[in-house]
Amino acid sequence: MKSLEEAAALLRGAERVMILCHQFPDGDTLGSGSALCRGLRQLGRRAAVRCSDRIGPKYRFLFEGLPDDAFEPDLVVAVDVADRALFGEPVGPEYGGRVDLCLDHHRSNVRYAKQSYVDPQAAATCEIIDVLLKLLGVAIDKPIAEALYTGISTDTGCFRYTNTTPAAHRIAADLLETGIDAAAIDRAMFDTKSRARLEMERRVLDSIRFACGGQIAVIRITKKMIAEAGAVEDDLDGLATIPRGIEGVRVGVTLREKDDGFYKVSLRAVSPADAAKICEKFGGGGHRGAAGCTLPPPLEEAEKKILGAVERHLKENR
Amino acid sequence: MKSLEEAAALLRGAERVMILCHQFPDGDTLGSGSALCRGLRQLGRRAAVRCSDRIGPKYRFLFEGLPDDAFEPDLVVAVDVADRALFGEPVGPEYGGRVDLCLDHHRSNVRYAKQSYVDPQAAATCEIIDVLLKLLGVAIDKPIAEALYTGISTDTGCFRYTNTTPAAHRIAADLLETGIDAAAIDRAMFDTKSRARLEMERRVLDSIRFACGGQIAVIRITKKMIAEAGAVEDDLDGLATIPRGIEGVRVGVTLREKDDGFYKVSLRAVSPADAAKICEKFGGGGHRGAAGCTLPPPLEEAEKKILGAVERHLKENR
Repeated sequence: MKSLEEAAALLRGAERVMILCHQFPDGDTLGSGSALCRGLRQLGRRAAVRCSDRIGPKYRFLFEGLPDDAFEPDLVVAVDVADRALFGEPVGPEYGGRVDLCLDHHRSNVRYAKQSYVDPQAAATCEIIDVLLKLLGVAIDKPIAEALYTGISTDTGCFRYTNTTPAAHRIAADLLETGIDAAAIDRAMFDTKSRARLEMERRVLDSIRFACGGQIAVIRITKKMIAEAGAVEDDLDGLATIPRGIEGVRVGVTLREKDDGFYKVSLRAVSPADAAKICEKFGGGGHRGAAGCTLPPPLEEAEKKILGAVERHLKENR
Repeated sequence: MKSLEEAAALLRGAERVMILCHQFPDGDTLGSGSALCRGLRQLGRRAAVRCSDRIGPKYRFLFEGLPDDAFEPDLVVAVDVADRALFGEPVGPEYGGRVDLCLDHHRSNVRYAKQSYVDPQAAATCEIIDVLLKLLGVAIDKPIAEALYTGISTDTGCFRYTNTTPAAHRIAADLLETGIDAAAIDRAMFDTKSRARLEMERRVLDSIRFACGGQIAVIRITKKMIAEAGAVEDDLDGLATIPRGIEGVRVGVTLREKDDGFYKVSLRAVSPADAAKICEKFGGGGHRGAAGCTLPPPLEEAEKKILGAVERHLKENR
């Protein structure tokens, strides 16, 4: 699909639209889902959002006032979902094989949908949704503006990651003019910490180790640490950015123990280092600045593997 | 002074311009100083920047390539300095009494200069400088864009404080288009932590206490903590935002022991609480979201005083 106008045409022809988000949902997939759903309902369509995971408290405002509608869709749309495998259960088994349209900004998108509009230049999928809603003639009201702002702000780390474009700032300016309280959204997304989060940060700071002459910093997030801090999923959000943030560090590595015993590896890289390139070697993917993959236990072995790959990459990309 | 055009006229008529920043310099005063100095030099004027304090390492790039010029100015301009007392020494005694033009965005500006242009709607003084430089016909090159971006980004907490305007986002978009590496600036300003900083954060987290049913959080920064962590001034930047960031907190209070034994109180407030109103009672000032004042020792007495005032304010502004 070459142009967003084609996506708009598909949506114009639909009556009942099911919108799918990825599992472990973030602000961009949920913001995109909320904004598209509200926009379609404004146009008189039936629309609902599905996500395999429970929506965390800080994102719940995105769905305020939206009824929990169930229907047989005539169009299934995935937002910000680069791969069918990222739907999780139950969304994957139910809808994963019949996605009509995928709207995404991940370069790594595997084109699993019947039609895909992927713009890797966009800082967030919400940037694409913003343009799409305007093509559809949707009025960007406050709830839609809040949803779009949430996606753009969270995916750019509040306008501080390298993916932040002039377009992202200009859309944010327009969204602010609808009168939304962007500072309150950012506070909820970035600044507000639960006590459990504080406890996790203290533990993570204690776990920091350095490699490659201080160019790599590694943290661990184990099930034991999570239990001791009394942390829930929301409390772990963004911990992976801590190691990259230490003076002199070019790649930050986070190893997180999953329920199945495997380790989710999150890489954060300072240009010219490329996190996606490293993670692709282990079947993962993402952006230059932030990417991920999964490695089998034991932890020491997983850490050795990823550190070796990062070290080689740093040597090749000075 | 009603319009920025008048300020531009003053600058056009000057040959040798001395630009003054406030003490304990931040990104906005230094970014404004750097951008204005570079702009005037581009126009063939002699210009230099003076600040009473040493420029911290993270801000030094702002002055790269600018010669350390000394001359007798025919125009003295203060940027982002709300009060003559904020020049510190030696800038205050030397130039404080003869400021021809003050460019500022602090509502609390006391109009100490011969002429003042104060725009409290501007998110940062750099926003004013951006318009001024364009009026003067200065080409916004990369070093100027970096300086302006630094001021806007730091004064808005990277576009997340309530003072962030659509204009701030639009200027940022334009500045990004000059090709500056905004992410690298933001990383240096916000994300990059020295090891000493990590140590300070750990100590500050340990010092947190709550009052008023969790609506007020207080941290202490003592000379002893600073010495133990091996921290320098730069390592303390932004610590005052930590208490406000805890769930349920409406006003965050930081008490910092100064060299003279007095305590610098920094307040961060969530609207409708107004930090400036509270600090004004103790002879201080600032913005609604962030303000400061100074209280005499002992620490317990200072804490009691400010907590009492905050508590009363919260009761009156639910």
